Amino acid sequence: MSQDLKEAALEYHAKPRPGKISVEITKPTATARDLALAYSPGVAEPVREIAKDPENAYKYTAKGNLVAVISDGTAILGLGNLGPLASKPVMEGKGVLFKRFAGVDVFDIEVNSESPQAFIETVERIADTFGGINLEDIKAPECFEIEHALIEKCNVPIFHDDQHGTAIVTAAGMINALELQGKKIEDAKVVCLGAGAAAIACMKLLVSCGISSENIFMLDRKGVIHSGREDLNQYKAMFANDTDKRTLDEAIDGADVFLGLSGPDLLSAEQLGKMAPNPVVFACSNPDPEINPETANSVRDDLIMATGRSDYPNQVNNVLGFPFIFRGALDVRATCINEEMKVAAVNAIRELAKEPVPQEICEAYGVESFEFGKQYIIPKPMDVRLLEVVPAAVARAAVDSGVARNEYPAHYPLKSMDDII
Amino acid sequence: MSQDLKEAALEYHAKPRPGKISVEITKPTATARDLALAYSPGVAEPVREIAKDPENAYKYTAKGNLVAVISDGTAILGLGNLGPLASKPVMEGKGVLFKRFAGVDVFDIEVNSESPQAFIETVERIADTFGGINLEDIKAPECFEIEHALIEKCNVPIFHDDQHGTAIVTAAGMINALELQGKKIEDAKVVCLGAGAAAIACMKLLVSCGISSENIFMLDRKGVIHSGREDLNQYKAMFANDTDKRTLDEAIDGADVFLGLSGPDLLSAEQLGKMAPNPVVFACSNPDPEINPETANSVRDDLIMATGRSDYPNQVNNVLGFPFIFRGALDVRATCINEEMKVAAVNAIRELAKEPVPQEICEAYGVESFEFGKQYIIPKPMDVRLLEVVPAAVARAAVDSGVARNEYPAHYPLKSMDDII
Repeated sequence: MSQDLKEAALEYHAKPRPGKISVEITKPTATARDLALAYSPGVAEPVREIAKDPENAYKYTAKGNLVAVISDGTAILGLGNLGPLASKPVMEGKGVLFKRFAGVDVFDIEVNSESPQAFIETVERIADTFGGINLEDIKAPECFEIEHALIEKCNVPIFHDDQHGTAIVTAAGMINALELQGKKIEDAKVVCLGAGAAAIACMKLLVSCGISSENIFMLDRKGVIHSGREDLNQYKAMFANDTDKRTLDEAIDGADVFLGLSGPDLLSAEQLGKMAPNPVVFACSNPDPEINPETANSVRDDLIMATGRSDYPNQVNNVLGFPFIFRGALDVRATCINEEMKVAAVNAIRELAKEPVPQEICEAYGVESFEFGKQYIIPKPMDVRLLEVVPAAVARAAVDSGVARNEYPAHYPLKSMDDII
Repeated sequence: MSQDLKEAALEYHAKPRPGKISVEITKPTATARDLALAYSPGVAEPVREIAKDPENAYKYTAKGNLVAVISDGTAILGLGNLGPLASKPVMEGKGVLFKRFAGVDVFDIEVNSESPQAFIETVERIADTFGGINLEDIKAPECFEIEHALIEKCNVPIFHDDQHGTAIVTAAGMINALELQGKKIEDAKVVCLGAGAAAIACMKLLVSCGISSENIFMLDRKGVIHSGREDLNQYKAMFANDTDKRTLDEAIDGADVFLGLSGPDLLSAEQLGKMAPNPVVFACSNPDPEINPETANSVRDDLIMATGRSDYPNQVNNVLGFPFIFRGALDVRATCINEEMKVAAVNAIRELAKEPVPQEICEAYGVESFEFGKQYIIPKPMDVRLLEVVPAAVARAAVDSGVARNEYPAHYPLKSMDDII
């Protein structure tokens, strides 16, 4: 990050008032009568209605549009475990993106917990406040236990974006890239460097999308995850193949896909050279990818490359997913975000990349046009059409898979932010 | 409550969108550059600064203006234990009042806890998210244990408004009433009907303001709390006098002050008749007071009467206190809200009642004038000068008593909402 950007970021967060959010009143409060409706004595009526039927909380409070973004600060961005309070700017920022892109209200909650069990208890006890919960920046493998327990205990959608948001956007881009490279999903040989929360979620979702688990080679710090290893947690063990490959050098040989969710410069030009013809390389370590795009493109011209960065083509950016996924889930009052909803989001995002891009979106990026191809495999974050297609797909999948408590919304698909109720 | 008001309250809460609040973005988010400052990669800078020094959270996040309004729903208004979710409209409403009157941002959090210990743990773990915590609608005696433990464990102000907010506004009105009736505080004989959270807090604060504890006669459901009773919890026991009075009939005889924090129609005309000359009657049971003001005034014409209702003179309304108390506490980054700050708030509120009332405030209430006297012993909720005098008094007391981490603010006293940083 440049010194200029660092200083601008501090200034942005500090001035004219600290932070990035405020809470605002949506109802009239000018007169004594207004206040008698908003608070005592009038407020007793919605209280009684909710006491009669908890579902009335969606009718009389902000719950139905309110998501908690919750972290324990154990894995903040790529910076590591800096504690809950240090995660607050990120959690507020996540709230900003939820609001900016899909009109979702967010309370950020930083939890100072001594254990996963304490974190689970805490979130469970406050969960009814919200219409959904987005877990964020929690380290693996604790995040799996936490997510699993909360899904069991809470009756609102629980979504760990570092896992599933990343997986959805990655899968959307990757399936498009495979298609452009003329590769069949079921035959694609995938090397996944990294075995953390995002990597495991990506591989699970790619399997849901048609990748064969036999074709996946996942590597952690010790090398290829294979069935002979006895040091694997249950999450990594799901991807332990019966293989004699042990190193990245061996795994990458002839691979169709490289997905990096690890660290900077861990894929060498030589290793890239050993991949199959027309390879797909997602080097998603941020801000410094597993291989520099300039280097990669100089080694091979048959490549499709994506990164986590906005200054190269094909940015894999979670913001293409989470705001719209929650929008759809909230609007049908889904009890969870299930595999069907995730796959529906993948397909909605990847299909959008194939549509002609309106001029105003191109202008926002200072280019003449975007056309589906090696340099444009996924939509851009500023593409307003995401609001139209992703919530609708997610809501439809929720209804069809039986986890929606509301019908498919009459006001869908959303044409603009003004359509959000 | 009239049927009309009930229906209007439900409509107010439901339309055009459910609830009374939204979360809004306070910084630019139009361009990709804006988003790179608000979120990754720029947001890493404030993260690093907070990891270096936790105080930087006040500089780079919304924490410093953010209060949690937290309830377990065990004592919602006068409605009883209806559970956490049913309390949400009240907690949102409290947030509305915080914002409307003092520009404080509020996240309402409803805690589903099986015990006071679980509630304490939960709030403790999420406390760093906020600049202060307002506990609300938690039943006694659990609320005392909860408040006490959280004050010990958290380093942001913890304030149980049902106790201390009520006590502050009650004390302000009562001291003015005693003065108008020509009674010396130290000699005033006080009967307090009710021994719950608010009653105990009121008596404690009145003692801090000069009432003699020997002159206080507190009654619970079983009658006068006296030193011979063995069924008292530690909180009631503080007000156990060595007296042979046993009933309200006996206690009220010759009393200067009646404070009702109990239930409707519990003070009879006959009992009122037995009070000392020029009595002070605060019948604060809501919505139905311990004695109807019309009845009371027909029995005695030497009376000063206050209630919790907006449709009679002298409304004891917590909104005169909590928004401004937190405003002052937040602005000097106080570590707590101590007795000095509470007494300062009492004095600021009661002094304001003696000032000439500007025409626009009178107009807001449809009257020609308010003048300090039997019908106007405390300011009206819509009095904008509360923002000027109460935060300044609280902030000054915090600084003088050594619990402020910031200096007295250079921009104080606040002249309008626009002055709030």
